[in-house]
Amino acid sequence: MDSIRVKEVERYSAEKMQKVNLFETERMFCDVYCLEPGQVQKPHRHEGADKIYYVLEGKGRFQVGEKTTELSAGTITMAPSGQEHGVVNESQDRLLVLVFMAPHP
Amino acid sequence: MDSIRVKEVERYSAEKMQKVNLFETERMFCDVYCLEPGQVQKPHRHEGADKIYYVLEGKGRFQVGEKTTELSAGTITMAPSGQEHGVVNESQDRLLVLVFMAPHP
Repeated sequence: MDSIRVKEVERYSAEKMQKVNLFETERMFCDVYCLEPGQVQKPHRHEGADKIYYVLEGKGRFQVGEKTTELSAGTITMAPSGQEHGVVNESQDRLLVLVFMAPHP
Repeated sequence: MDSIRVKEVERYSAEKMQKVNLFETERMFCDVYCLEPGQVQKPHRHEGADKIYYVLEGKGRFQVGEKTTELSAGTITMAPSGQEHGVVNESQDRLLVLVFMAPHP
């Protein structure tokens, strides 16, 4: 049984958003995304896979489809298959997001 | 774009552990499990599906396969396909767990 304290594996870089993989199987993956102020995950889409974002720390402006919403710690959203999605950290603080995607693309 | 503040949808019952669904597609689901002290999710298994547990609040004794480990808030673990898994809240406080499973069983 592998367990991970998420705060012990977070990793930030001045260069770009960091993705740290927590778990990966043929069916899904689970990452944490670590965004310094100003960093982004550019809008993109996956056909046939759904992504969930759960905000662990900070706040981000999340896009799903045509809509963007600022989400703060304790909030969860889903980007269904085929819908464009991304996130930008417009705040002055770090943004830490738990990400789950299935199936594994 | 649907977003949910997890603390606004948690629901506890003296009778048994409560599962609150957050998102569900043909590919996966995402729930929160709400356990009063002493409540359990009995060990069980799913063939062909992986489950992730992320502890949001409190602490629980999680079983995956042969092993059990006490996990507290901020910790994540995975029960891979076919491995027996469950959780018991042996503490004096409520236990709130974010749960992802893929594919949808």
